[in-house]
Amino acid sequence: MLERGVHRFVAELSRETGMLLKQETFDSPSPTLLIHAVHSSERVQRLGDDESYELAITKSGAKLTAPTPLGILHGLQTFLQLVETTANGFSVPAVTIEDKPRFAWRGLLIDVGRHFIPLDELKRNIDGMAAVKMNVLHWHLYDNEGFRVESKRFPRLQQAGSDGLYYTQADIRDFVAYAHDRGIRVVPEFEMPGHSRSLFAGYPELASGPGPYKVEPNGVDAVMDPTREETYQFIEKFFAEMAGLFPDEYFHIGGDEVNGSQWTANGRIQAFMNAHGMKTNQDLQAYFNQRLQKILNKHQKIMMGWDEVLRPDLPKTVVVQSWRGQQSLAAAAQQGYRSLLSFGYYLDLMWPASQHYAVDPMSGAAAALNPDEKSRIIGGEACMWSEWVTAENIDSRIWPRNASIAERLWSSPETQDSASMYTRLNRLSRRLEWLGLTHRTSLLTAFYRMAGTNDIAALRTLAGVVEPVKDYTRMNNLKGAWDFRGPLNRLVDIAHPESDEARHFRDAVQTYARSGYKDKTAEGEIRARLIAWRDNDARLRPLLEQSFLLNELKPLSEDLSALAAASLFALNYLGQSTPSPNSWREQQLALLERAKTPKADLLLMVVEPARQLIEGSGGQTR
Amino acid sequence: MLERGVHRFVAELSRETGMLLKQETFDSPSPTLLIHAVHSSERVQRLGDDESYELAITKSGAKLTAPTPLGILHGLQTFLQLVETTANGFSVPAVTIEDKPRFAWRGLLIDVGRHFIPLDELKRNIDGMAAVKMNVLHWHLYDNEGFRVESKRFPRLQQAGSDGLYYTQADIRDFVAYAHDRGIRVVPEFEMPGHSRSLFAGYPELASGPGPYKVEPNGVDAVMDPTREETYQFIEKFFAEMAGLFPDEYFHIGGDEVNGSQWTANGRIQAFMNAHGMKTNQDLQAYFNQRLQKILNKHQKIMMGWDEVLRPDLPKTVVVQSWRGQQSLAAAAQQGYRSLLSFGYYLDLMWPASQHYAVDPMSGAAAALNPDEKSRIIGGEACMWSEWVTAENIDSRIWPRNASIAERLWSSPETQDSASMYTRLNRLSRRLEWLGLTHRTSLLTAFYRMAGTNDIAALRTLAGVVEPVKDYTRMNNLKGAWDFRGPLNRLVDIAHPESDEARHFRDAVQTYARSGYKDKTAEGEIRARLIAWRDNDARLRPLLEQSFLLNELKPLSEDLSALAAASLFALNYLGQSTPSPNSWREQQLALLERAKTPKADLLLMVVEPARQLIEGSGGQTR
Repeated sequence: MLERGVHRFVAELSRETGMLLKQETFDSPSPTLLIHAVHSSERVQRLGDDESYELAITKSGAKLTAPTPLGILHGLQTFLQLVETTANGFSVPAVTIEDKPRFAWRGLLIDVGRHFIPLDELKRNIDGMAAVKMNVLHWHLYDNEGFRVESKRFPRLQQAGSDGLYYTQADIRDFVAYAHDRGIRVVPEFEMPGHSRSLFAGYPELASGPGPYKVEPNGVDAVMDPTREETYQFIEKFFAEMAGLFPDEYFHIGGDEVNGSQWTANGRIQAFMNAHGMKTNQDLQAYFNQRLQKILNKHQKIMMGWDEVLRPDLPKTVVVQSWRGQQSLAAAAQQGYRSLLSFGYYLDLMWPASQHYAVDPMSGAAAALNPDEKSRIIGGEACMWSEWVTAENIDSRIWPRNASIAERLWSSPETQDSASMYTRLNRLSRRLEWLGLTHRTSLLTAFYRMAGTNDIAALRTLAGVVEPVKDYTRMNNLKGAWDFRGPLNRLVDIAHPESDEARHFRDAVQTYARSGYKDKTAEGEIRARLIAWRDNDARLRPLLEQSFLLNELKPLSEDLSALAAASLFALNYLGQSTPSPNSWREQQLALLERAKTPKADLLLMVVEPARQLIEGSGGQTR
Repeated sequence: MLERGVHRFVAELSRETGMLLKQETFDSPSPTLLIHAVHSSERVQRLGDDESYELAITKSGAKLTAPTPLGILHGLQTFLQLVETTANGFSVPAVTIEDKPRFAWRGLLIDVGRHFIPLDELKRNIDGMAAVKMNVLHWHLYDNEGFRVESKRFPRLQQAGSDGLYYTQADIRDFVAYAHDRGIRVVPEFEMPGHSRSLFAGYPELASGPGPYKVEPNGVDAVMDPTREETYQFIEKFFAEMAGLFPDEYFHIGGDEVNGSQWTANGRIQAFMNAHGMKTNQDLQAYFNQRLQKILNKHQKIMMGWDEVLRPDLPKTVVVQSWRGQQSLAAAAQQGYRSLLSFGYYLDLMWPASQHYAVDPMSGAAAALNPDEKSRIIGGEACMWSEWVTAENIDSRIWPRNASIAERLWSSPETQDSASMYTRLNRLSRRLEWLGLTHRTSLLTAFYRMAGTNDIAALRTLAGVVEPVKDYTRMNNLKGAWDFRGPLNRLVDIAHPESDEARHFRDAVQTYARSGYKDKTAEGEIRARLIAWRDNDARLRPLLEQSFLLNELKPLSEDLSALAAASLFALNYLGQSTPSPNSWREQQLALLERAKTPKADLLLMVVEPARQLIEGSGGQTR
């Protein structure tokens, strides 16, 4: 593990610098990186392994020491982070760093059920995780829309439950080894009793309703039948197979969003519940979870579940993952369960990095816990649900925002300044490119497709200042049922979740306003951007006309140009120190309101700074 | 082969459109692509296989017919080429195409000796070749700087002859199968007796001088000893092993640029030559080639060599590859040899695509050949020599320019219009992105490295109007010896060999001049570009100061801005229909001369159109 880690380090340093480095370079008399790990690595990585390291860089060389190879891996990443292009060459600052993680569980969930993500894409995301020192890949292996694991015992699972896109057992072994090499544990999720319709395509007898079941859009929200012993016989055998395939100690059984209507509608299930004194569907699910836990126990696996599994009768070994709010995280810890946070870390909701960064597992309800209870909060996990995600855009949905969550889980809670976080994010974003992540470059090919021409500059300008609508708005805006087989080739599928360009503009307007509209540098920067935006609609128009994929962007493009034109007027008023007429400002309000409304599932992100300029031009603040 | 070809077709169409297509889509009642191949495919593809196809697209569907699966593969590529983004959706025009290649040998040479190119990069270039219907990958497997094939018989070849970077035999089988699947033959080159110093690192007894030999810069230009029987015993065994590894019928033995000084200096070799009545080193090489040909004959391999092998006593089965001029191509054909052209197709010389496109194997001396002689000219090969090429920049050195050579070798010689060739090249360039080629995206990461910041717009602007110096200028400019282990991270390593931006600017200035300086659209386009360039130096300056990799670009950046400022003055004179003063124009000449001089091994490509504007502003032409 250590040797391969050092090898990758040299390879990445070589890519970053464009120098043809080899490991032997390190035998040279020039400054040297000495690496020392006290212990060797285990075949299977465990939660709570020592991940600390010490990196001391001086003029004569660097020394990296750690109790375990895991710490060495983290230290090498820190070293790579420090490499800078300077006027005199590549350099690293002379520093001494003693570092260790705040939380032991720093994860990323990737949902491959709704859209299959090929192994290559997953692997480069593992490389990205290693770069930000995350240590758990939570693999959401199936959902209603597709089953993605080869079962040799129950082959109809992947045959009937997928469109042919699944991982073979060889793929999985390869992937787990790949992740392990990079200090990342792979925790599989086998979601039940809900979110599991794809299982029923091959094995309809597992379901609580009559079926038939197909992997198709808008199918029945079916759930497993927890009352038949045959269900547990299936699970016994299936888990036995999967427990062998996934070496990690933890095993996630899902357990969220169980729609009980099939249970209510099934007389046999109702009779079972009556016979066993179960009053609610929650009681039945609790019974189911206890059975699962016993099965997993036989395989020395620790069960995990989403926060719905939290019930007084749940064995205390189970780990609870909070997704519905920070409240459940604290409640679980208080009741004696280890718990981790995902609420606030959903990457599919298209939040800005700063919003994720502000979410701390120890804040909110958890702040009131006693130290013992607090110690049971073991970390958090970013979640990449894949309703709108494919191999093409997954990198831009995960990166660089995921790094803000990784930092929150690794670093001190006192570090909260989001401006400096963005500085680190920008640097990291460049490094991720060398790891092969396509969070920036994938936009280029998508623009070409949408435009059908090489001249994409105007499209790039518009795309640079929009963001996809937030939270579940896109799903809620759907006219018909969501079709997971539909094309994902609109700008909303491509545009970055967070617009750097808009953030820079907002910052410039803030700076300008704070200077009492005197700062000429800020003014120049604002004006240059506004002119480019004002003129962009005319340049973009021919593209919008000629491509069906761009047609829906017309109102958005018009809004941007109109907004920029109005802001330029405001800028002129501000520059002349002449207050703009009230009537003029009021006319602009309608424009601002129109520009604020989402269009084509996109938000124009420069409306608020434009409002600030327009309102500011009235002169009240001077 | 056919099935996998169709599968890849669906996958690429899916990437191009962003639709989640599956093969079964084609069972739908909507327009359908019917595919029919008369014969099935052979395990080994042969020169002269029927590659023709017929593609008929109507409103109700498309039909693709071909005598062989090779033709089907080509037809599918044509179909992909036809897909357009339109106002109403993705579409293909209704056309009927009957198509077959002009030449049977349409190759690309990749040199992996001077810099190792990993398998992944080679594979995506195979995909690119398939897209432009090339059918031979000529694999230059070693050179003085490195030996890249695992030999089990002679393991010191790769152990002492490389820096650990070589292909295992499993890699090679995998790669050959990958290429075969895409209709591409792999012809290996085992260069001897020259360009083979890396062989002598492990087996110094093969060389004509005493050694010792190491793979290092500036080593002796050593050659094999053709006088010892042990040399042929080695070659016998080595070729036997390699003949098994490479299934293709053709086998290249190099034979170019033999430096005879070791032969002249070796008394034993001189005695051998005297004893056998050999007067010149060429006589000795001819003897050597005859021995090689006999060895290859035993393995049913057809020998190929560079044009130096052409001698009256050379067996007529040998294929001659012309690199020193078109003359040798015709001479070989006239003397009864089959021959192919590489002179004029050297991608490493950084020529524009139009220059390659103008080179026709049948032009020059070949034009005077009789039909029988002409029939022996079997095609041509683009050559990617790798002195300045690594995995990082190889795609941008090969693509899209290689497509102009592929088109020359496939299409009718009458098609010569370079403007329409560039239109096709632009479209293709987009398609290549979906195949994973990085000829555009790799610039982004390199810019980040050079700039050490995310704000690379100004650097991109400068990089967009420069080209690396042409032919062998860069090598000739070197102060010391060329070191193949040196970093390749300067702008000259990154910038595109051909500047699209400069070509567009040149075209706009031509249009403007032809209109008698009246065309307002052209003027507007010219002005916008000039303003951006004029202001670029100020924006780029901070980056140039802060990075040692950019420092050398200062004079280039200043020239661009000065040139643009002068051209804007010229534009004003032209717009006002006032001739510019003679004295002013003369002052600008010094600037133009300075800007013409290469700097940092780069050429500023907008000097000539600027000169046209400045001279035109004198009014003589109105």
